[in-house]
Amino acid sequence: VKLTWHRQNLRLRHRFATSQYGVDEKETIVVELEHEGVTGYGEVAPSRLYGQTLESSEAALSGCARLLGDDPFALDTILRRLLDTWDGQRAAIAGVDSALHDWIAKRLGVPVWRLLGLKRPSVMTTMTIGVADADETRTKVDEALAAGFRALKVKVGTDDDLRTLEIVRAAFNGPLLLDANQGWDPADAARRIRELAQYRPAMIEQPLRRDDWRHLAELREIDVAPIYADESCERVADVVKLKDVVDGINIKFTKCGGIRAALEMIAVARALGLGVMLGCFACSGLAIAPALAIASLVDFVDLDGHLLLSDDPFPGIACREGIETLPDTAGLGVRPA
Amino acid sequence: VKLTWHRQNLRLRHRFATSQYGVDEKETIVVELEHEGVTGYGEVAPSRLYGQTLESSEAALSGCARLLGDDPFALDTILRRLLDTWDGQRAAIAGVDSALHDWIAKRLGVPVWRLLGLKRPSVMTTMTIGVADADETRTKVDEALAAGFRALKVKVGTDDDLRTLEIVRAAFNGPLLLDANQGWDPADAARRIRELAQYRPAMIEQPLRRDDWRHLAELREIDVAPIYADESCERVADVVKLKDVVDGINIKFTKCGGIRAALEMIAVARALGLGVMLGCFACSGLAIAPALAIASLVDFVDLDGHLLLSDDPFPGIACREGIETLPDTAGLGVRPA
Repeated sequence: VKLTWHRQNLRLRHRFATSQYGVDEKETIVVELEHEGVTGYGEVAPSRLYGQTLESSEAALSGCARLLGDDPFALDTILRRLLDTWDGQRAAIAGVDSALHDWIAKRLGVPVWRLLGLKRPSVMTTMTIGVADADETRTKVDEALAAGFRALKVKVGTDDDLRTLEIVRAAFNGPLLLDANQGWDPADAARRIRELAQYRPAMIEQPLRRDDWRHLAELREIDVAPIYADESCERVADVVKLKDVVDGINIKFTKCGGIRAALEMIAVARALGLGVMLGCFACSGLAIAPALAIASLVDFVDLDGHLLLSDDPFPGIACREGIETLPDTAGLGVRPA
Repeated sequence: VKLTWHRQNLRLRHRFATSQYGVDEKETIVVELEHEGVTGYGEVAPSRLYGQTLESSEAALSGCARLLGDDPFALDTILRRLLDTWDGQRAAIAGVDSALHDWIAKRLGVPVWRLLGLKRPSVMTTMTIGVADADETRTKVDEALAAGFRALKVKVGTDDDLRTLEIVRAAFNGPLLLDANQGWDPADAARRIRELAQYRPAMIEQPLRRDDWRHLAELREIDVAPIYADESCERVADVVKLKDVVDGINIKFTKCGGIRAALEMIAVARALGLGVMLGCFACSGLAIAPALAIASLVDFVDLDGHLLLSDDPFPGIACREGIETLPDTAGLGVRPA
């Protein structure tokens, strides 16, 4: 089993900002796993928030390459070994997990979603509106609606939140997800949520600092919208701790390590009565495709990373009127342009 | 997708008894799922303890046959539909789940364990010694050891327990699992466990009535052996409730509905820190094979149903020195004799 990788540079259509940072381009890593004439692909989209950089991911990939053994079908054995050894670098492991699934599915001649016993995904994704001034917000909302999106996610967590939501709701009446990215203070988060109630959020993501579970649990008592954990929930152990703290979790492959870890988290979340959302970081279609493969299992889909790019180097995902689907072809369903 | 079924009669080598019942033959149901020239097999081993009979299972199979749709790959959709409609008849659903997995794996040309990303099972099963008089117990233990078994499970829950264990331990020094099948009274269960400590049990299964969770949790405080829930744990919802009540769970496909439900239970049990065991009822190799396919994931394996038969109508599972393995062939690895 041969593992190689290279960086790819992604240009965003618009500068994208949250309450924490802003970007207009992003580098990710493309992983190629080759064995017996078949190549499987994966993407590593590291996030500093979880101690991951391009460099740390590449170091982890070098280590992972030596732990793959000689049978890519042995997902359970391989991924346990990688997680035991490179636990802090789960963005890199997610890239390998994707490449393994792509390889197996191509080898067997089925789409990844079919390999997993799932139905072909046909899911409505939210389009994310980043933090921006009034004019830019108006433009972005108009663009999203013109492009056919029927669910929006708005980044909040600044003092302009009410103005932003006023603009959004003036143009849009559908499902509206809010994401504070840890941006609110526990002292006034409750007041903010009550103020936002008039804009009928379908869900509020990570209102407080990720380690402030006590106040998170208090916010849940306010009957405005379900509270979801994003930064507070990296992996399966966190899901158990978040029972009775939040109403749902946002699973991202960069945080958990890929398809197999995500399926475990979904099983545990469902058993504990938690809602489930699938999210992403800025990335190409290559990182979106494996998440989309399991998206029929979740409540909210926020897989728009590749849609924010001016040019997707891994085309294959169809998105019409905000509904994303994967093709009925072998593997992940995306390939290098 | 065409589903048919017929009964098969199984003769046991010895009369088999627990603290609750005795049998010397057993009828199960063989399920055949045929689609596009490929046939997948499954076995239904109903248990009255869970409201299942041959008749109720056959009624459920008639209903399931109409809910299969036209794509056996759609495991998630199909099994949700069956569980929604025939929730009380999960032995029947386990038979269909097995037949679907066998069909998919044969169609793709891989063993079921490889389809699931797991390694080829090579696991030590316990051989079960039923409730019997002193001479018969001695004979059964000698036979088990002569056949190479290196782990035993002994049925307890009668007033002869100490005499039985004295006989077993006189001949055998290895891992010894005890199963009371709800047979003990909460008033003296603690005393019994302390008395049994001298026989070094590796685990004690279901000491009390299945709904007596309060006393079960108390027994866990006695530091003799981990307490496992069997009759108390049918499905994934029970796993969540059993956290802090027992140390582990016994998963049986007859109780939960098959491979897919079992994998969910394992994910949840692991997340909650619970041990996991795989068990069975009297059945042929056809019901053992799908459980064995996932047995590399668990702590204790008690998959000896087919080994208790005078003649297994579904050969294919190898058992040497108590180590069970499945072949590297497409599908479940067993086929009609």
